[in-house]
Amino acid sequence: MNRLNTDPIALFEAAHEGERLALAKLMSVVERGGDEARLIGSHTYAQVGNAYTIGMTGAPGSGKSSLTSALASVVRSEEQRLAILAVDPSSPFTGGAILGDRVRMQDHVTDEGIYIRSMATRGHLGGLSLATPQAVRVLDALGWPWVLIETVGVGQVEVDIAGAADTTIVVVNPGWGDAVQANKAGLMEVADIFVINKADRKGADDTRRDIQQMLELSSLGDWEPPILMTVATDQEGVGALWEAVNEHRSHLQSSGELTSRRSVRTQEELLEIVQRSLEHRVATLMDGPTATKLREELAEGKIDPYTAASRLIEMDES
Amino acid sequence: MNRLNTDPIALFEAAHEGERLALAKLMSVVERGGDEARLIGSHTYAQVGNAYTIGMTGAPGSGKSSLTSALASVVRSEEQRLAILAVDPSSPFTGGAILGDRVRMQDHVTDEGIYIRSMATRGHLGGLSLATPQAVRVLDALGWPWVLIETVGVGQVEVDIAGAADTTIVVVNPGWGDAVQANKAGLMEVADIFVINKADRKGADDTRRDIQQMLELSSLGDWEPPILMTVATDQEGVGALWEAVNEHRSHLQSSGELTSRRSVRTQEELLEIVQRSLEHRVATLMDGPTATKLREELAEGKIDPYTAASRLIEMDES
Repeated sequence: MNRLNTDPIALFEAAHEGERLALAKLMSVVERGGDEARLIGSHTYAQVGNAYTIGMTGAPGSGKSSLTSALASVVRSEEQRLAILAVDPSSPFTGGAILGDRVRMQDHVTDEGIYIRSMATRGHLGGLSLATPQAVRVLDALGWPWVLIETVGVGQVEVDIAGAADTTIVVVNPGWGDAVQANKAGLMEVADIFVINKADRKGADDTRRDIQQMLELSSLGDWEPPILMTVATDQEGVGALWEAVNEHRSHLQSSGELTSRRSVRTQEELLEIVQRSLEHRVATLMDGPTATKLREELAEGKIDPYTAASRLIEMDES
Repeated sequence: MNRLNTDPIALFEAAHEGERLALAKLMSVVERGGDEARLIGSHTYAQVGNAYTIGMTGAPGSGKSSLTSALASVVRSEEQRLAILAVDPSSPFTGGAILGDRVRMQDHVTDEGIYIRSMATRGHLGGLSLATPQAVRVLDALGWPWVLIETVGVGQVEVDIAGAADTTIVVVNPGWGDAVQANKAGLMEVADIFVINKADRKGADDTRRDIQQMLELSSLGDWEPPILMTVATDQEGVGALWEAVNEHRSHLQSSGELTSRRSVRTQEELLEIVQRSLEHRVATLMDGPTATKLREELAEGKIDPYTAASRLIEMDES
């Protein structure tokens, strides 16, 4: 295994042959970021484009894990394979495989047709908004036909990550709740499918009407997001959800929107990579010995801030 | 005047001889930013450090202009000179001298001991948070002993600009009001002096108690911000405000905090200049012909985003 610890390409090859441990290590490399992650990115890029991605976001407690698990059962009943990325931008800890509150996923632990991976911040340059698309590409290149990206909350970062999928599912509960209220606009913007989970509770119809009204006020494209009712723990409505995902997929494919959406996402990723690289450069510049010296001169009034900035930037360029 | 239109150093010299038109043009150069502004910055830097800056921020309608005008009368009664920068980060329009709602300042229009200048965004790289300290340095180098920076609102940008002064005055009215509530924490952080203006209105004592309680919950340094009551339109309490400014100045000087505060500000300015320069560089990179070509290759799947980013950044460095 020593070779696998050091060579990301070897890890990729081993993962390709079905070694789960190699895949886990590979995902850790992607999560950490840096040159090794970029190497994997370049290596896999020519082999991607076949996986279809599903994003799922919703407030903590809305039942996303149960819904993911229920959806996994439907996918498996069709003998398809599904990889699940559980992304938590608020946590510096990674679960590796199945940890914490992901107990419901235990049904699928021993299933070779399901892959589950938690991802946390881990100091990746640019965080999970850059690590997640890299992780998806790795799974794509390894031949996983479906990748579901589940995020833990409804903050803008979570919504952005889940929203960068081909089909995005927004999960709410009857009555919405405060957490959702705070970023309703952000959720409305990314939703391709609304799911009212725990729909056996009081207020489900009101919530549906509420969403319907907001959709009527929005400027929608050709696709009108369906509003589905589920009780994930009883597998209720989950078949219909899977149908809706497939309908949305057909819509994106026939309209040509799938290609354009993916293209826009890659362009946004490029911009973010460039921005993060330069941010990193600012941090490096401001920490170096030249900066220390210039800061001292600045403090002593020997130099003005614009001259100091020019010298720092020139140094960076040379 | 042709020479003055093109050479910022000549403008500075003319302003130094007391030409108000040259000073106005000089401030426009600073407002616009760019190389000419930087030239003035370097030219004046050795001559600065004598001006004392006062920041004033508060919600629109709280009476900042009236208070500034009343304060100007007190300063003039002591035969001191005062420059006033009215900074509006939300507006792309500059008033040049005295415009809009600055009618109350009309008292001081013909007074050679008062200089009034409105500043607006004007596309300065980094906006007014970078243009304002440059403008202050110009006034400082020209020998203005007091510079008052008044901002139009209580948004974080306004509070940051007014807060980057030696003494910062936060103006509120009895009852505070919604605009202030939204950024109370930001205001508490920068306030060296609280002024409850329009203190003849109902609720002034409650507001004082409210501020007092918040101050008690804050971790203050050696200086406890006084809470003053004024009715600026009647000149009531304005003498006491001027005394408080002078007391705070003495405190900063005797404690050595004046030097350290100014040093921290200059360091923050350096960081912001470097950040803005690199942001500008990202924008330039993403707009160039190489970026267009790489974007096309990216859209066609011929290249991965990390490789595209590396090529863009390498191009920038060569």
